[in-house]
Amino acid sequence: MAKVFGYAEVAKHNTADSCWVILYGNVYDVTDFVSQHPGGAKVILQLAGTDATEEYDPIHPPGILEENLKPEQKLGSVNLDTLPAVEKSPVETGDAIQDGSVELDSILNIDEIEEVATKQISRKAWAYYYSAGDDLMSKKFNNEVYRKILLRPRIFVDCVNCDTSTSFLSHKVKLPIYVSPAAMARLAHPDGEWGIAQACEQYGAMQLISQNASMTPEQIVAGAKEGQVFGWQLYVQTERAKSEAILARMNKLPQIKFICLTLDAPVPGKREDDERSKNIGSNLPVRAAVQEDASVNKTSTDAKAPSPPKSMGVGQSLFWGTAADLTWQRTLPWLAQHTSLPIVLKGIQTHEDAYLASLHAPQVKAIILSNHGGRALDTAPPAVHTLLEIRKYCPEVFDCVEVWVDGGIKRGTDVIKALCLGARGVGVGRAALFGLGAGGKEGVARVLEILKAETETCMRLLGVERVDQLGMHHINARAIERDIYDGPAALERPSLAARLRAKL
Amino acid sequence: MAKVFGYAEVAKHNTADSCWVILYGNVYDVTDFVSQHPGGAKVILQLAGTDATEEYDPIHPPGILEENLKPEQKLGSVNLDTLPAVEKSPVETGDAIQDGSVELDSILNIDEIEEVATKQISRKAWAYYYSAGDDLMSKKFNNEVYRKILLRPRIFVDCVNCDTSTSFLSHKVKLPIYVSPAAMARLAHPDGEWGIAQACEQYGAMQLISQNASMTPEQIVAGAKEGQVFGWQLYVQTERAKSEAILARMNKLPQIKFICLTLDAPVPGKREDDERSKNIGSNLPVRAAVQEDASVNKTSTDAKAPSPPKSMGVGQSLFWGTAADLTWQRTLPWLAQHTSLPIVLKGIQTHEDAYLASLHAPQVKAIILSNHGGRALDTAPPAVHTLLEIRKYCPEVFDCVEVWVDGGIKRGTDVIKALCLGARGVGVGRAALFGLGAGGKEGVARVLEILKAETETCMRLLGVERVDQLGMHHINARAIERDIYDGPAALERPSLAARLRAKL
Amino acid sequence: MAKVFGYAEVAKHNTADSCWVILYGNVYDVTDFVSQHPGGAKVILQLAGTDATEEYDPIHPPGILEENLKPEQKLGSVNLDTLPAVEKSPVETGDAIQDGSVELDSILNIDEIEEVATKQISRKAWAYYYSAGDDLMSKKFNNEVYRKILLRPRIFVDCVNCDTSTSFLSHKVKLPIYVSPAAMARLAHPDGEWGIAQACEQYGAMQLISQNASMTPEQIVAGAKEGQVFGWQLYVQTERAKSEAILARMNKLPQIKFICLTLDAPVPGKREDDERSKNIGSNLPVRAAVQEDASVNKTSTDAKAPSPPKSMGVGQSLFWGTAADLTWQRTLPWLAQHTSLPIVLKGIQTHEDAYLASLHAPQVKAIILSNHGGRALDTAPPAVHTLLEIRKYCPEVFDCVEVWVDGGIKRGTDVIKALCLGARGVGVGRAALFGLGAGGKEGVARVLEILKAETETCMRLLGVERVDQLGMHHINARAIERDIYDGPAALERPSLAARLRAKL
Amino acid sequence: MAKVFGYAEVAKHNTADSCWVILYGNVYDVTDFVSQHPGGAKVILQLAGTDATEEYDPIHPPGILEENLKPEQKLGSVNLDTLPAVEKSPVETGDAIQDGSVELDSILNIDEIEEVATKQISRKAWAYYYSAGDDLMSKKFNNEVYRKILLRPRIFVDCVNCDTSTSFLSHKVKLPIYVSPAAMARLAHPDGEWGIAQACEQYGAMQLISQNASMTPEQIVAGAKEGQVFGWQLYVQTERAKSEAILARMNKLPQIKFICLTLDAPVPGKREDDERSKNIGSNLPVRAAVQEDASVNKTSTDAKAPSPPKSMGVGQSLFWGTAADLTWQRTLPWLAQHTSLPIVLKGIQTHEDAYLASLHAPQVKAIILSNHGGRALDTAPPAVHTLLEIRKYCPEVFDCVEVWVDGGIKRGTDVIKALCLGARGVGVGRAALFGLGAGGKEGVARVLEILKAETETCMRLLGVERVDQLGMHHINARAIERDIYDGPAALERPSLAARLRAKL
Repeated sequence: MAKVFGYAEVAKHNTADSCWVILYGNVYDVTDFVSQHPGGAKVILQLAGTDATEEYDPIHPPGILEENLKPEQKLGSVNLDTLPAVEKSPVETGDAIQDGSVELDSILNIDEIEEVATKQISRKAWAYYYSAGDDLMSKKFNNEVYRKILLRPRIFVDCVNCDTSTSFLSHKVKLPIYVSPAAMARLAHPDGEWGIAQACEQYGAMQLISQNASMTPEQIVAGAKEGQVFGWQLYVQTERAKSEAILARMNKLPQIKFICLTLDAPVPGKREDDERSKNIGSNLPVRAAVQEDASVNKTSTDAKAPSPPKSMGVGQSLFWGTAADLTWQRTLPWLAQHTSLPIVLKGIQTHEDAYLASLHAPQVKAIILSNHGGRALDTAPPAVHTLLEIRKYCPEVFDCVEVWVDGGIKRGTDVIKALCLGARGVGVGRAALFGLGAGGKEGVARVLEILKAETETCMRLLGVERVDQLGMHHINARAIERDIYDGPAALERPSLAARLRAKL
Repeated sequence: MAKVFGYAEVAKHNTADSCWVILYGNVYDVTDFVSQHPGGAKVILQLAGTDATEEYDPIHPPGILEENLKPEQKLGSVNLDTLPAVEKSPVETGDAIQDGSVELDSILNIDEIEEVATKQISRKAWAYYYSAGDDLMSKKFNNEVYRKILLRPRIFVDCVNCDTSTSFLSHKVKLPIYVSPAAMARLAHPDGEWGIAQACEQYGAMQLISQNASMTPEQIVAGAKEGQVFGWQLYVQTERAKSEAILARMNKLPQIKFICLTLDAPVPGKREDDERSKNIGSNLPVRAAVQEDASVNKTSTDAKAPSPPKSMGVGQSLFWGTAADLTWQRTLPWLAQHTSLPIVLKGIQTHEDAYLASLHAPQVKAIILSNHGGRALDTAPPAVHTLLEIRKYCPEVFDCVEVWVDGGIKRGTDVIKALCLGARGVGVGRAALFGLGAGGKEGVARVLEILKAETETCMRLLGVERVDQLGMHHINARAIERDIYDGPAALERPSLAARLRAKL
Repeated sequence: MAKVFGYAEVAKHNTADSCWVILYGNVYDVTDFVSQHPGGAKVILQLAGTDATEEYDPIHPPGILEENLKPEQKLGSVNLDTLPAVEKSPVETGDAIQDGSVELDSILNIDEIEEVATKQISRKAWAYYYSAGDDLMSKKFNNEVYRKILLRPRIFVDCVNCDTSTSFLSHKVKLPIYVSPAAMARLAHPDGEWGIAQACEQYGAMQLISQNASMTPEQIVAGAKEGQVFGWQLYVQTERAKSEAILARMNKLPQIKFICLTLDAPVPGKREDDERSKNIGSNLPVRAAVQEDASVNKTSTDAKAPSPPKSMGVGQSLFWGTAADLTWQRTLPWLAQHTSLPIVLKGIQTHEDAYLASLHAPQVKAIILSNHGGRALDTAPPAVHTLLEIRKYCPEVFDCVEVWVDGGIKRGTDVIKALCLGARGVGVGRAALFGLGAGGKEGVARVLEILKAETETCMRLLGVERVDQLGMHHINARAIERDIYDGPAALERPSLAARLRAKL
Repeated sequence: MAKVFGYAEVAKHNTADSCWVILYGNVYDVTDFVSQHPGGAKVILQLAGTDATEEYDPIHPPGILEENLKPEQKLGSVNLDTLPAVEKSPVETGDAIQDGSVELDSILNIDEIEEVATKQISRKAWAYYYSAGDDLMSKKFNNEVYRKILLRPRIFVDCVNCDTSTSFLSHKVKLPIYVSPAAMARLAHPDGEWGIAQACEQYGAMQLISQNASMTPEQIVAGAKEGQVFGWQLYVQTERAKSEAILARMNKLPQIKFICLTLDAPVPGKREDDERSKNIGSNLPVRAAVQEDASVNKTSTDAKAPSPPKSMGVGQSLFWGTAADLTWQRTLPWLAQHTSLPIVLKGIQTHEDAYLASLHAPQVKAIILSNHGGRALDTAPPAVHTLLEIRKYCPEVFDCVEVWVDGGIKRGTDVIKALCLGARGVGVGRAALFGLGAGGKEGVARVLEILKAETETCMRLLGVERVDQLGMHHINARAIERDIYDGPAALERPSLAARLRAKL
């Protein structure tokens, strides 16, 4: 049977010429695989001759190992008694967090969730979640813009009843708040994206699954309840076959109700905090679950695929392979060939593109106004600007497609303000990830609990019972209105529709 | 006669099964009362078997004990010699404060009053007074908005004479400044709301008594001088009979000149500082004087009344039982059935509601533009915004009802600016409470002395002798005017009156 | 001959019943004078039985002693050998400052002058100079408003020559910068107002002498050169005879070219820093030179004059006796009776008052737009606002009277911006006083040297040779223009002239 | 042969009467030269009798020594063994920097470049580079104005290709970013301006050479590759013959493609940081390479040339001799007499001057909107204001001349925003100098690498392939547009062209 190695024997194979690693108690010879590793050779070589389980586990989905290595590369098992003692960090084990459930009640708002998580998660995970483009100005705008909008509470309105339920693409949900497609959740907590799904189920919230999720979609939707709504975020790959394989896989998952095409990041933004973190501690071989599957399948047959640069932050690493050549003309028809699921376009930042998207209804059923959490182009406008632009220049968009927004949501009042401006729902990304970091799936649930309670309080104090009653008369957005785009399109606006159609 | 217990004997009864407490030297068996305690069972159980007088006294009015317990539940007295030695805090005894009267003269402004009080009062009291909704943005706006308004001093005007007197609802007062209905004054100082009344008498100022006052209205108005003006703040209770009983009680107090109906807080705002304080030290069984009376009377007959949640901040605790189903159609007629006193509506935050209120004159005689000191909905507009909205969209409101404002007043110049904008008077809440905390009734008097002197200096330097001479030509509010609501009502404004009447 | 006392003998007379003091080596019995002391009895009694010279000297002009005491109250001289040793502070002697002349060159701007002076002068002097109304917002606005105005440098303009000379009321001066009537200069340095005059002579600058100067006008103008220009600031006294005596005295001083009537402070503003300083160290018997003369002459005959309050800051103390009943109708004709000097009205803060003043030309020859350095009414507008108001609503004012401004000037660019807006000259007050504190008369000269050099650099870089070439095209004041008053006068403006005349 | 001196012998000649110095191992008698030294006598005398090589070398170009001293003034060589041991600073030797090349990769943005350089360069160099006028407000505005402009990313645009190349005056370059004429580069690193040229060659960037460069133009362009583009910045000298000699020299250098005439600093601004630094350490005899040549040639024949003031900052020292009498009428024709190279006017700060310049095409081929990096007149407008003014009042300027801008560029997004507003290129000055300070020519290359990468990312995320596609529809500049000049020219605008021509 399988041979049993002592740790000392494994430790000798610590070079590119002979590279062994221990994973889950087994010993693998990865010498031939090193150069093909999507996360780069360097990160494997740093762990050559050691037990790499702790570094490998949080960021690789199950099954990946088997798919990538030939059976003969599994050499045998390690004699566990020969392993050196290691101290596990509370984050990896999650122990401290499980015990901290009482503590979660004492966290009162989203900022505190972030504070707690920041102390608990690794510096690398923090850097990946926290980082945004250049000087973080769009990230900051995203939140500040809500603070500048005033609310207009009405009095003498019976507010005993309060109903936050709504629907996305005709699917009923209990909250106008959904979880944005946030990547690499297992960096924060072993519950990962599955943990987010559990919390969403508890509060009736929709979840968008990132293509860069650290678990497979099948794992994430495992155990989803009847009526639970998921969307799948697609980063179209340069090698289209990879994306086609992914779409085929999604078509088989009934919980996936739509495909969300990410458009605000055809190339990665410059996230300096994340780039800096690549030098912190060991270089984790970060790789998304789905991409890993696909890329591995392809690697053997496509020797010409460019290899990724030597050293990158988590964000850059995940981005590798993403296509930069999407267009209205080519990409939507291609998508139609490979899926009949409704399409949601994510990353609209101008009224012109919102208008163009609306011309593609009904294939396009919703648009997400997003600057990618400020992570793509710094000083890109917050979604509130784009909402106001649409209201001013092409309000018919709201009749053609659902308009969702994300970025900067930290309070129930922020949620309500977005809805008053015309958004059907608002996504939270970092909040969910930090919730995970603060307390696993219970932490995410606490995030939703806080936001739901704040949203209800806001509705009641405004004198509103249902979310569809919210409107521009409930807010004063003058401080923002005077700042929205008022540029050269002014001349062309009378024939905007004609012009835009002509462009297509 | 009454039995005398040793402290050791009492200390044995420290569980939910047998719960004794010592109050004012007497021993009570409160086992049966624990589950009915409006402030929650937990706070009593924490003090079970001990002398609870120090915690009980500042927040329960006299007589409450007798009303809530059956005679046989008073078991006897304690042998005082057996009590453990305790150190009294200066706040509870007020000793240090009495000695500090000279010091009060050296306090030059309202911010310094708050500083002094913050050092002297308990953390719990501070948290309750200081706290406001969410991120305290409305609380901050309330004050900052005044700082952005410029004054326009006129020269060569004889300003030897200066008269700050005015009238509220035809009752003469010496100041356009009144004390807002601030709750739980005895948390700051044993003088409590009665102390505020004493200071108001000294300066000829009106006082609104909070339904959540820590003393009974009879105690507060005790010793009021001829012509001293009080209003009673009503939080309508879910159990209307409670409120009806309160109104009946007010109808018998000639010092109460009007009923002030609070509308800006149908549900409690999220005051995180206050919520956090529930974990500080022992959980004080906070309860308002009047509500306690009423609720106790009812509790025995209304077994179905919902019990309050286990653990709350002071604000949430006080809020328990408040009705959220008030409407123009039902509530004002109901009020008319139970009192013939003039009605003042507190919490108007939009010109639409100001207009609606004005349609209810003469039952409604005044409105208070208020966002509840920023304690209800965060990012609600400051009263200055609502004043400017009314001026712009429905100035006839000023002819129908008196318009009072509160929130953010820290300087005599703030008072004058509000008056220039059309307010008849301005309320101060936290300033009075912090004054109490800084020096009991003398501290409140110092607050009024400072504000009166600053107001007079401002009037003189503006070249104004009487408050009725103040107007928009004395201020430059452009920095605010460009920020006030300019939203969708624009289209409907021509028929605003018609529309609003139709809504009724 | 005069008797010689030992210090021990003098020291025994240290009560209100028998109060002796040593001044300049002589012994005086001031028992009868204590109650008449304009600065209050307390400050004298604190020094009773001691050598009070050090405290007395900086704030009393020469001759005052003789005028106030009868010959027999001078008891004799003290045996200097019996005096206790005292350590003189560098401020009082000025020694350190004389040595510091080299250091003055290393001071590069007005802020640094203030920093140096702040370290050298007494806390009391600092508090009096630094203080401003309430929260110091107008003081801050005064300076910030200049920072928000942009300059528009022109190129290809020969700027070899640069001439800062101009004229005030037809009197030629070399600088458009004058020294505002700043009080109590000897608190900063023994050179006092005479030192300011010396520096002004050196740079050809005009000086306004405060009625609250710590030296007599005769002392200040002593040694003035041919062509040196002075103005006299008048605070009209409640006892008009005092002011009439002062005016008579000015009429005899040929260097005094005009009377500057202060109108922006009919009552003192609330200067908390100054009020606090009254408790610092011994209470200096502060009193202005001229007022002291006059008040003493009157005191004996006017027993009913109200006595000043017990304890005041320097500002309040100086203010005592100032009239609050001035009016356009009464005060200007009264002035005409007592002086034929041109009148300059100081403290205009609205375009309405600027317009009214212009109707009083030619008696009124100039107006000073001033909020009293932010020391009167807090949140009063900076002079830049009033300049822009005049430009917008009644530009004819500039044709009728000269318009001077003060407040907030710290840079040559500030000077130029004020001139571009229409000011004929700008006054600096605190800068001169802090210059005095930093280095006596040389320190004031350094202030003028810095401002002159900065002004010239600014003119050259703008492409301007003479100050009369400066205009609105050299600045961009849009950031301020949108904030100036736009209030109710709008309706009445068409008939502004008629309306204002009618008011007279 | 040359005599060999011991150090002790040299050390005796340390006075103005007999002043020897050691330079590069040789001994010179500079007694006669001291009074003619353009940097002042004092700095030489401080080094009299010592080895001055370390102080002399970084700021004097080769050959200067021979040109300025007669052969007989070279007395001989020094016995190197007699020299006292000295410790060289890493900056002067550059050793530490050469080793730091790996570190440069970890610098992620321009602010970090400045941080690294600030730690490595001398305080004097830092002060000269960092300093700006008065309160550094224009310097701050220059950068902040870009932060307030929002970008408008478009989606579904193929952004695989991205081309940053453009042309200046028809010369092709690979970047729209050029290096501004920054002076005294050798203060930062021995690579000096030649190092900047090397980095520019690597990235295909244009370089403007400052007249105050610390190397001769011949040295700087030495080794320039085919197609590398240089411009020469001219400060016209009071002694025109000097400038004529410089122009003649430039006409012979084929790499110099145009003359850039600096107009924004006819007199030096007030740079306090720089002025303060004159007192730090020994007074370096700073002098620009070209000026030194010229001035020396002239000095002997022009005894009446004014001598510079005793003590100045680097900026003031460099400025000595610059003409302040340039005009449209005289200077451009004079230039035409002495060079046929195209003229670029640097320092336009108003639309009026941009318009005037455009009337001088084709002699004038480009204008640079610049406030001299905030170093001339503080509160002068940033180039973005001038761009917007031109767009509003005289957009035809863009058709007549190329418009370049500098000041405040720190990010690729800043570059793109300037191009969207109509600029053809943007200059970076301090960034290049700090790059030099951070790592010599590799440091400058890192600066260009960072800016190029950021610019490309910005173009891709905007959906733009070539720089000529950028336009006003890619940005939202409303926050700035409302602040640009809107002053009195309004009335004269209809006849602006006529008026301006008349002025000529």
